Amino acid sequence: MGLDDVRDYLESFTHRDWQASADDDGVVRFALVGLGWWTKERAMPAIENSTFCETTVVVSRSAEKAQRVAAEHDAVEAGLSSEEFHDGAAADAYDAVYVCTPNARHLEFVESAAARGKAVLCEKPMEATLERAERLADAAADVPAMIAYRMHTEPAVRRARELVREGAIGDPVHVHGNMSQSITGWGPDQWRLDPDLAGPGTSVTDLGIYPLNTTRFVLESDPVAVQSMMDSSHEYFEDVPDEVAAFNVTFEDGTLASCTASQHSQLDSFLKIVGSDGRLCIEPAFHSESSLRATVGETTIDIETPQVDQMEEEFDYFADCVLDDRSPHATPEHGLVDMQAIEAIYDAAEGNETRTL
Amino acid sequence: MGLDDVRDYLESFTHRDWQASADDDGVVRFALVGLGWWTKERAMPAIENSTFCETTVVVSRSAEKAQRVAAEHDAVEAGLSSEEFHDGAAADAYDAVYVCTPNARHLEFVESAAARGKAVLCEKPMEATLERAERLADAAADVPAMIAYRMHTEPAVRRARELVREGAIGDPVHVHGNMSQSITGWGPDQWRLDPDLAGPGTSVTDLGIYPLNTTRFVLESDPVAVQSMMDSSHEYFEDVPDEVAAFNVTFEDGTLASCTASQHSQLDSFLKIVGSDGRLCIEPAFHSESSLRATVGETTIDIETPQVDQMEEEFDYFADCVLDDRSPHATPEHGLVDMQAIEAIYDAAEGNETRTL
Repeated sequence: MGLDDVRDYLESFTHRDWQASADDDGVVRFALVGLGWWTKERAMPAIENSTFCETTVVVSRSAEKAQRVAAEHDAVEAGLSSEEFHDGAAADAYDAVYVCTPNARHLEFVESAAARGKAVLCEKPMEATLERAERLADAAADVPAMIAYRMHTEPAVRRARELVREGAIGDPVHVHGNMSQSITGWGPDQWRLDPDLAGPGTSVTDLGIYPLNTTRFVLESDPVAVQSMMDSSHEYFEDVPDEVAAFNVTFEDGTLASCTASQHSQLDSFLKIVGSDGRLCIEPAFHSESSLRATVGETTIDIETPQVDQMEEEFDYFADCVLDDRSPHATPEHGLVDMQAIEAIYDAAEGNETRTL
Repeated sequence: MGLDDVRDYLESFTHRDWQASADDDGVVRFALVGLGWWTKERAMPAIENSTFCETTVVVSRSAEKAQRVAAEHDAVEAGLSSEEFHDGAAADAYDAVYVCTPNARHLEFVESAAARGKAVLCEKPMEATLERAERLADAAADVPAMIAYRMHTEPAVRRARELVREGAIGDPVHVHGNMSQSITGWGPDQWRLDPDLAGPGTSVTDLGIYPLNTTRFVLESDPVAVQSMMDSSHEYFEDVPDEVAAFNVTFEDGTLASCTASQHSQLDSFLKIVGSDGRLCIEPAFHSESSLRATVGETTIDIETPQVDQMEEEFDYFADCVLDDRSPHATPEHGLVDMQAIEAIYDAAEGNETRTL
């Protein structure tokens, strides 16, 4: 590979390599369901800046909160309570829903939205349990539906995937990935620490899903076996097993991934893929900014991918798929693979056994 | 912490913080047993540059090779065959042995050396099996003895240990570590791929021991449970299970470590420790050079520790302990903890179970 090849390579990348629609092909109008900080601080600004999306409806358990948020945003036509949403209020005002409630409440909103033919963008993990996630996939079978894996449209991750596909690091051999943060500052009463709302745990479902799913995406391979260790000692984590978790995953292609996740540690995230001929490191990886370094042989290059708003990319990608009438990469079936792996990871920790999928 | 504290901190470190003897307190004369490339290319030059060590005898299975290597080095008084060594030839010419043979041949040389009261520096892993390692520890019970963990005198590792001990990153939560390289260029006929000589496998025994032991050293905590996954697909690895291995370790203090090792991948090594308040990353870590980065809160500092010859430090540390009549950190008992963990790691992979220690 000469200098010309390097230049060609660096110039070949369009950060919206996925975009099929023209910028003026239309807009998908969203009802945002669940008005926590992620929706208000991350999703709504992203949609405001997006090419293909608009927020026209907001939905909250609290009608008062929904109406207040609606009043704060000119483009929003209606602020609905959950009950009003389920009853079909303002159904003509939106084309799609973005579901960002506690995990165990995804299903009911997907069911209501899909029953009216609305497109569905649902946060990950899909639901609190595999069984409910399967019901969610069934409910959304006849509408455009995507699970909200924002790493799939992160340029650093897409570039890493291309490099692996092109054989730049040879055969992938092993992977290390972590996502950790601390949620104890939010006190003991939060849905992520409540198994009825979060599912079997907190760190693997909420954070471990990032290295798990991103490894699947980059390797284009799925898990076949998992094992894990978990520990909870802080009082806030008494109802969940995984204040910290370490889990190993064997992928179909033989690659072994070593992942950790913790809701009670220093903020950190990375994904490192070592192959027979080189390695890739995305660090930081999962906390809203991503940076890619590649080493082949003894040469290391920092690949400066565009620093995008990952939520803006994700929303526009989904809307582009809807407008273009094509299926997104992260269908509910794609999400179910993670749900199966996550359930097995908790089972494996409890049973002290490796579980095959 | 103000700027003065930072300066005091940075100036406080002596890279030989372990040294007790004066530079002119004497010399320990070594018989080097096993004349592979590590001994010839790494150990002998290190000893030549050292303060407290001298090579006076070399020992090989081949008398001809031993004599040839002896002739190439002025200070070396004798080149012995293994049989001559066992029979006590030139026993007055050395004070200590450095055993760097294939794993399964450590025991016989340690037994012969210890029987004559010689000090013992034995490469890791201690032996091919836990049972033989226990016999080795028994044999060396009455002489100064150390297992050759060169990371214990690596300044970056010692500094990381200090930072953890001082609480700089809060409570350790999880660790990622890898050591990998490719040995396929050496062909199929090498002792590291022969279970009779190497032990139950190759990647964990030879490489995985680095992140395992260095985590023990930095955390000052020992393993209590292990689990692992292994895969061998390349033809050279048909007799060993671990062309690549991923293993998790729970430590006494609750920290979870995710480690990988491979004898058939791109050269790579790192050790990353994430705590409640910060993180440390040693990268590269285990391939003869080490570099330390520390992040506390949102501030990251690169700590430029002296770039030492790790083998020179290791030999001088051991000799300093011998001259000073004190016990080294890595006694045979210390090494046995790794041997127990490694045996459990192989058992865990075979049984698909978590093993407690």
